[in-house]
Amino acid sequence: MENRVTDLLKIKYPVIQGGMVWCSGWRLASAVSNNGGLGLLGAGSMTPELLREHITKCREATNLPFGVNIPLIYQEIDGINRIIVEEGVKIVFSSAGNPKTWTKYFKDNGITVVHVVSSSKFAKKAEDAGVDAIVVEGFEAGGHNGREETGSFALIPQVRKAVSLPLIAAGGIGTGEGILAAMSLGADGVQMGTRFALSEESSASEKFKRLCTTLNEGDTLLSLKKLSPTRLIKNELFDNIKKLEDNGANADELLDFLGRGRTRIGMFEGDLVNGELEIGQISSLIREIEPVETIMKKIISEFNSSLKKLKSTNEW
Amino acid sequence: MENRVTDLLKIKYPVIQGGMVWCSGWRLASAVSNNGGLGLLGAGSMTPELLREHITKCREATNLPFGVNIPLIYQEIDGINRIIVEEGVKIVFSSAGNPKTWTKYFKDNGITVVHVVSSSKFAKKAEDAGVDAIVVEGFEAGGHNGREETGSFALIPQVRKAVSLPLIAAGGIGTGEGILAAMSLGADGVQMGTRFALSEESSASEKFKRLCTTLNEGDTLLSLKKLSPTRLIKNELFDNIKKLEDNGANADELLDFLGRGRTRIGMFEGDLVNGELEIGQISSLIREIEPVETIMKKIISEFNSSLKKLKSTNEW
Repeated sequence: MENRVTDLLKIKYPVIQGGMVWCSGWRLASAVSNNGGLGLLGAGSMTPELLREHITKCREATNLPFGVNIPLIYQEIDGINRIIVEEGVKIVFSSAGNPKTWTKYFKDNGITVVHVVSSSKFAKKAEDAGVDAIVVEGFEAGGHNGREETGSFALIPQVRKAVSLPLIAAGGIGTGEGILAAMSLGADGVQMGTRFALSEESSASEKFKRLCTTLNEGDTLLSLKKLSPTRLIKNELFDNIKKLEDNGANADELLDFLGRGRTRIGMFEGDLVNGELEIGQISSLIREIEPVETIMKKIISEFNSSLKKLKSTNEW
Repeated sequence: MENRVTDLLKIKYPVIQGGMVWCSGWRLASAVSNNGGLGLLGAGSMTPELLREHITKCREATNLPFGVNIPLIYQEIDGINRIIVEEGVKIVFSSAGNPKTWTKYFKDNGITVVHVVSSSKFAKKAEDAGVDAIVVEGFEAGGHNGREETGSFALIPQVRKAVSLPLIAAGGIGTGEGILAAMSLGADGVQMGTRFALSEESSASEKFKRLCTTLNEGDTLLSLKKLSPTRLIKNELFDNIKKLEDNGANADELLDFLGRGRTRIGMFEGDLVNGELEIGQISSLIREIEPVETIMKKIISEFNSSLKKLKSTNEW
């Protein structure tokens, strides 16, 4: 398997593990990289010094490429980006912010930059900013999400048409069949968050992971649209947010109610009642917490069997 | 091309034209059937006598199979279902309602029944009710939509896992690449609404169709969740609904504001300001109003070239 994504990132399979808050430290990222994908450290829930520690440990755990996901609106951004360069990180996935602000800095320091977008319009802006590849993330994805609410089926072909860069599809993809479907729509590779968030190596709370393996369709919904649209599990916190929203609460009232640290207490500390629990729609297809090695083997085997099946399909 | 969907419906290609209010009369349905797909009359915007007229005219325009889409909660349901049997219609796609209520009646009258659902849970209920096949419709679809908000990428494989019936995927599919992607995820065929709503033969207002060819991603959103979730184009009516919703309006207040006939005045009469304008997310990929013959040829050719491309992909 070789294509523009594997060539750019120097990996065996065009499968990227999404860099997620509270889930993706050095254990997860190194396991994915060791199994032929690209592991990403999720800097969005780390201080700069903690990120340095994870980079060091990740490097001890794998000789293969890995990267760091950085939400560009993160308050610790200056410190994070200084560490990235000091530590000689070679791949950055940037998200949630304007790619113009930092892409040149990364590129000048020899870093490959991939930017995450939710629409063709932002994909074109990222291309103009000089990034090397695009992740396009559909409505199915967990956590923070685009305002356009475009599902991956409609989104992937439109971004494919809009930009010529290598294209990585995310949102609703958790199996080998999903990878093949994304490729049919024009993607060169995929980024999976949910599937890897629910692995043994994920640093999320075991309680959170176990809850995710019991979810059904409709058990997550896009919430907090007056702040920043976020896909959450429908727990007690979600219900309380919904009541406020249904009664016309404004952004300030929602912020007041939420306070701070809700994803940490939910996803890391395991408070399933009061925490913000972020996971994608594909969680309802995942019924087991497995090691990354098993997950990667399954994905590859699913990809191969569905490719084989399509190869036996006749033309119309 | 032969599979369980083409066998069941006796059609050449497993491509069904969604039965849509104000768009799908005899001209559209017969054109789709004449080009190898399955045309559906949309009974949801017809009186029983008008449906009888469309059935008669459709039969004059094609010798090939066609069907009728019936929203089971439609107030005219008794009259519609009487006409269906009197006129000897052979295929019914039922939606929006409990499949237990009418499936036996249809089956006892020798009719093939396909039921439209938005989740695995409802797919299983439809299977239990004895339907012959399932349409699973993802969040990307226009108009009325499931409360689970599951995108097609996450939905198709889950419904595939849940039921063994022939599976038709809908929502976000408007191209041959989309058909191939749906098949990769386990579908046996597809239903396309938006692509055919924007054809020459669609009976929707020309103004509405032209507007749809100018839409960008994010120009439709799921609205009216306190009533029945409906994907609408963001026009002035949508903005007014959103203001009410943002300020906490309840279902009664929304109903009072809407009054009746909003889809008719929008989609049929072409009032783009005050009408409810229902179309799917894939509209932003469609830039031309073409005859059904051209659309079908393009879809088939796209399907074949993307299949060819996948066939040249190496296993991992």
